[in-house]
Amino acid sequence: MLSAETLLQEIEQEIKAFRFPENPHALYEPIEYSMSLGGKRIRPIMCLAACSLFTDDYKKALPAAMAIEMFHNFTLLHDDVMDNANLRRNQPTVHAKYGQNTAILSGDQMLIEAYKLLAQTDSPMFSLVMDTFNKTATEVCEGQQYDMDFEKRTDVAIDEYLEMIRLKTAVLLAGATKIGALIGGGSHKEVQAIYDFSIGIGLAFQLQDDLLDTFGDEKTFGKEIGGDIMENKKTYLLISALQNADTEQRGELIKWLSKDRDMVIREEKVAAVRAIFETTGARQATVNKMEELHANAISTLREMDISAQGKRFFLNFADTLLKRKR
Amino acid sequence: MLSAETLLQEIEQEIKAFRFPENPHALYEPIEYSMSLGGKRIRPIMCLAACSLFTDDYKKALPAAMAIEMFHNFTLLHDDVMDNANLRRNQPTVHAKYGQNTAILSGDQMLIEAYKLLAQTDSPMFSLVMDTFNKTATEVCEGQQYDMDFEKRTDVAIDEYLEMIRLKTAVLLAGATKIGALIGGGSHKEVQAIYDFSIGIGLAFQLQDDLLDTFGDEKTFGKEIGGDIMENKKTYLLISALQNADTEQRGELIKWLSKDRDMVIREEKVAAVRAIFETTGARQATVNKMEELHANAISTLREMDISAQGKRFFLNFADTLLKRKR
Repeated sequence: MLSAETLLQEIEQEIKAFRFPENPHALYEPIEYSMSLGGKRIRPIMCLAACSLFTDDYKKALPAAMAIEMFHNFTLLHDDVMDNANLRRNQPTVHAKYGQNTAILSGDQMLIEAYKLLAQTDSPMFSLVMDTFNKTATEVCEGQQYDMDFEKRTDVAIDEYLEMIRLKTAVLLAGATKIGALIGGGSHKEVQAIYDFSIGIGLAFQLQDDLLDTFGDEKTFGKEIGGDIMENKKTYLLISALQNADTEQRGELIKWLSKDRDMVIREEKVAAVRAIFETTGARQATVNKMEELHANAISTLREMDISAQGKRFFLNFADTLLKRKR
Repeated sequence: MLSAETLLQEIEQEIKAFRFPENPHALYEPIEYSMSLGGKRIRPIMCLAACSLFTDDYKKALPAAMAIEMFHNFTLLHDDVMDNANLRRNQPTVHAKYGQNTAILSGDQMLIEAYKLLAQTDSPMFSLVMDTFNKTATEVCEGQQYDMDFEKRTDVAIDEYLEMIRLKTAVLLAGATKIGALIGGGSHKEVQAIYDFSIGIGLAFQLQDDLLDTFGDEKTFGKEIGGDIMENKKTYLLISALQNADTEQRGELIKWLSKDRDMVIREEKVAAVRAIFETTGARQATVNKMEELHANAISTLREMDISAQGKRFFLNFADTLLKRKR
């Protein structure tokens, strides 16, 4: 079993070697820019690793791994247009750098490029790979839609939130491992098990993201802390806090939620809401849920009929994801 | 050989029967709206007809035909966002009706739906069908990019314009027939011939579109005449006029092109530029080019080793497209 670092290098090398046509320059340059911005490459690493659980020839999954990374970057690109976001990974977004129309069209082309990469997959399981990719892509769009729907609602329940992040975040991690495992030749049972494991890790990953956005360290996190609080985002933290609050805490929280954005001092609101997340036990509830999801995922992994090395890889990789500071 | 009317009915029925998931409603409703807006369904008709040149079981191409229509509507949807267009087929665009973010996300989902439909194709040629679809989709995006690039240029040459409309318009018609012919089991030679025929018809179709936009009858055309003139669009008409004009005509034309949009009376500019298109012979040059493309396409078709009925279908269909008033 290769290390995550080796797989990461493999993917970075593949991305670097990827050549787009020279023209039209304005279409392809933003795609190269978007792909070169870096990121943790979690999904392609998981795809290759899942493939290598079942075959030494894990490189068979390289085109599909690249397709998934291309798709992931496509979603970031269009999300940034929809959110009107100007920074991503401390760099200007495509939208900010090249304009909205370019971001839309180059994003469209990235989605097509993802399918082109996927079509390079040489496997008897290609039809299932394609179906998995299509289903996953649809779910990611559905998740993004629910996320936008939730902005306009005040009654989002915990289960709805978990379903939204399953779609928006977890299924792409899980689709990546499922596709890798399918190409590697895993049995139906093992393919399903690695998928379930990855869904749990994906959900926990998103809860960790929510925690970092509110309680992280600005220096290591790489962006301003408290963004979710400032946008009144219905995260696990906020929903739990509203659920667990006593009358006084709820009154205080709703006061902050209903204040006009321009009428609050950022530091004050972030500090006050953060304190409520602590006193209502919402922070602890989020940590508990994250640990529960992590533990369940691990027990699914432990029961799999794969090598001890393979299990260790995914245990460590999940640990790294969930203990990260950024 | 079935009639174009029968094929159209088949496609309309298929679109009507298409069921999207109930939720998230805000994602799927705009897709249903976009698909229900109508249109001539030229591409899926050509796809089915091309299939039926080689097999009676032309319904094998129905999922691919639907994929192409879905893709076409996806491009219209995103183009309308990029152009900030509020009307399409006399109805509000998705962008105008549901907002920009919905138009972006629902458009993305339509592109994924197109691939889902394509994946339903049951054919030993699936891999070639997929490659043709991917190549075509890329070329359409490239065409759209060149079209946007040309807005900022004043030195667009006739050949560049023809290449742009080949990518933006012709390849999707041609990809539709190629995919239909592949699924039908046409030989390599016949598949290439029907592709070449469709490229010629697609180019002529776009020139006809340019002519209608400038010289059409507002009542039958369904939108205001002179849109291209008002936007100084580098059409075959404008490029030919600039090329053929004498000093006086060129001076007059450039005067109109360089006037601030808010400083001209629409009727005056449209009438004046239209007159220059006549006197410089640009209108005639465009008609000539259209007829040349049409004639070449027809001779490619005549040489094909297909039934007389099949030839007649495509001859008539091309005639209808090129003699249309809207």
